[in-house]
Amino acid sequence: MYVGTEFLKIKESEDAIDIIQNLFDKYYSPESEEIPVADAYGRVLFCDVLSQMDFPPFDKALKDGFAVKAEDTFGANDEIPNSLEVIDFLEAGSTTEKIVENGKTIEISTGAAMPQGADAVVMVEYCDKKGDSVDILKSATPTLDVAKKGSDIEKGKLLMEKGSLLTPGKIGVLLSQGFETVKVFKKPSLGVISTGNEIVTQDMELTYGKIFDVNGNMIKNDAISCGANGEFLGIVKDDYNQLKTKIQESLNKVDILICSGGTSAGLGDVVKHVLDELGQVYIHGISVQPGKPTIVGVVDGKIIIGLPGNPVSALMIFNVFVAPAITKLSGINYDFAKNTTKGILQKRIHSPVGRMQYQLVKIDGDKIYPIFKDSGAIFSLSTADGYVKVLKSVELIDKGEELEVFLFNKLI
Amino acid sequence: MYVGTEFLKIKESEDAIDIIQNLFDKYYSPESEEIPVADAYGRVLFCDVLSQMDFPPFDKALKDGFAVKAEDTFGANDEIPNSLEVIDFLEAGSTTEKIVENGKTIEISTGAAMPQGADAVVMVEYCDKKGDSVDILKSATPTLDVAKKGSDIEKGKLLMEKGSLLTPGKIGVLLSQGFETVKVFKKPSLGVISTGNEIVTQDMELTYGKIFDVNGNMIKNDAISCGANGEFLGIVKDDYNQLKTKIQESLNKVDILICSGGTSAGLGDVVKHVLDELGQVYIHGISVQPGKPTIVGVVDGKIIIGLPGNPVSALMIFNVFVAPAITKLSGINYDFAKNTTKGILQKRIHSPVGRMQYQLVKIDGDKIYPIFKDSGAIFSLSTADGYVKVLKSVELIDKGEELEVFLFNKLI
Repeated sequence: MYVGTEFLKIKESEDAIDIIQNLFDKYYSPESEEIPVADAYGRVLFCDVLSQMDFPPFDKALKDGFAVKAEDTFGANDEIPNSLEVIDFLEAGSTTEKIVENGKTIEISTGAAMPQGADAVVMVEYCDKKGDSVDILKSATPTLDVAKKGSDIEKGKLLMEKGSLLTPGKIGVLLSQGFETVKVFKKPSLGVISTGNEIVTQDMELTYGKIFDVNGNMIKNDAISCGANGEFLGIVKDDYNQLKTKIQESLNKVDILICSGGTSAGLGDVVKHVLDELGQVYIHGISVQPGKPTIVGVVDGKIIIGLPGNPVSALMIFNVFVAPAITKLSGINYDFAKNTTKGILQKRIHSPVGRMQYQLVKIDGDKIYPIFKDSGAIFSLSTADGYVKVLKSVELIDKGEELEVFLFNKLI
Repeated sequence: MYVGTEFLKIKESEDAIDIIQNLFDKYYSPESEEIPVADAYGRVLFCDVLSQMDFPPFDKALKDGFAVKAEDTFGANDEIPNSLEVIDFLEAGSTTEKIVENGKTIEISTGAAMPQGADAVVMVEYCDKKGDSVDILKSATPTLDVAKKGSDIEKGKLLMEKGSLLTPGKIGVLLSQGFETVKVFKKPSLGVISTGNEIVTQDMELTYGKIFDVNGNMIKNDAISCGANGEFLGIVKDDYNQLKTKIQESLNKVDILICSGGTSAGLGDVVKHVLDELGQVYIHGISVQPGKPTIVGVVDGKIIIGLPGNPVSALMIFNVFVAPAITKLSGINYDFAKNTTKGILQKRIHSPVGRMQYQLVKIDGDKIYPIFKDSGAIFSLSTADGYVKVLKSVELIDKGEELEVFLFNKLI
């Protein structure tokens, strides 16, 4: 029953993180997809983007007023205005064949292309229109209130770097350049299988001895929060053949496969045996609490991770060991190690020597409250803000100590 | 041409924020919708949720081992084990009719319902099975390694409060209670119309004098980032009748309507006149830079906001004045005033006296760099991390001063 298991030493927490990241780097490359710019919020640029046109694409009036040759306004003021002949009117978006020659002007709206011959705009506030002529009441310097073609964005320059998160502002810049689509990181697909004879879905009857499945849709949603397309693939019994068939089917559908449950060394352990047959197991057991019975294997070039059936352990293990690799594959530049806050421990934490412990905590201001319920306690999933690490050499952290809390919130 | 305008005094920035929030409070109430728990990531609970069942739903074994009457193990140790008759085997999810009486035990898996008569589990490590009997090597106290029914979650208690953001963990708790659906805040719908004779969509040819529309899809995406369903409704010319028809059509489709462009007091001003005819204008002009020509009106009980056509101004005005009201309506407990960071100004900022100025800035560590390009400069949308407020009484902020930066990033 334990064939192979005894040869696979339990991994230290830090080693397990490295092994998983290395497997992801070996078996997956980020992929791209082309999507409409209009729907790109929150996605990540897959390539550098170069500007494809000058912006503005023409010399543009920045004010409502009169397009002039600046030299025609020199010396003008309230008392001695310069009178110019108004030969046309240019709204934004329209053009004219007429040319502004000395002594002439074209009335112009903000955003309109400057007419030929003109090099400045005199704001309407400094103009006094009288029929077909206008008195200019202030002198203008060349380029006054004109945005020169390409002054904002020059064609062929680096507009945005690979890895940029597409905010509304960045989407605006892409739109201004006329991009209809943009190449972004494709979301890796992650499927979750829940195993266990005791679990049923929420649309089934809960007979005595059964519990509702949590991990399938919970881990699906956590994967979504990491930038993946998460999918719950359903429940299978703790049965070798059923699980094997389900895993083989699922590998045709998704990039990354998570199996929850069935990973302990107890009576119902099947994930390990299926992975041993179908592929290779790289981790069987991590020296952490909670979540020791974690399995990582590769089948047909795809990574399969067996999480503990206990939802608290499953979510913790997924966050600590798997989420960083998934966000990286999704192109998201998110540093889990920096999503922390500091606070003062309000109650003593006891910890098993020899295992890294991840202790769930709740935060209130700078106060840290450990959540001490048994690791099976579902409710703690609702109240925990994050966790503190208790190193394997540490047996006790006393009340009053300052600790770093690793926060659960990621993209929202 | 300016009918009505002169009677509407320009609003101070703080007053405009209040007026807009009050209009939202008056004309909209948050609405709810029922969605699958499995798809609820990032949504916000509309009501308190009470637990609908005890969890665990039965006395549950927490370890693999043997279900016993604790009293049958008293005094047992390695040297003097107590031998019990094994009468059945219980996997998680299965049940038995058999009762554990004195001298008997049932082998049990983690997660299984405790059989009748047993009150403790002796871990498999402390048991030595021999055919139909087992030697118990350690004494157990009652309830050892048993999670009592309802010990984690008691039926009928407050499980989660209205306004809770549904994280993967909270979704897990709802799943454990068997909820298939959950009532969340419905996303308000927001439509954006871009107005202007000079703008074309990205699938159209950019003839001379035209520019690509930015605001439609940019503001759509910013609305999405605030928890709304954003939609770009298309471009209309700066034409009174076209705009009027488009606004009337759009009000049948969306809750909140944004019109960008056509709001200055210049030649192309049409939004104001249409709103004057169709409904009531509450704000025409806010004493801010950039973005003075902002309009807020109500037509048929729906709020219409006219943003400046300039994308930098439009995004700034939307973020400062509209986004807080939209996140509130979306149920998102997001405090814009707290999404700030402090830093040291690296270059002097000049500001017009008499108007609040929002100065775009870029941040590098604790260094703040103002982005000084003309307010039409699209590229600054890509580089700005946020803005600093320059109060209307302030003319200059000197290099070296510590300032608070309001950050643009919201939900991501």
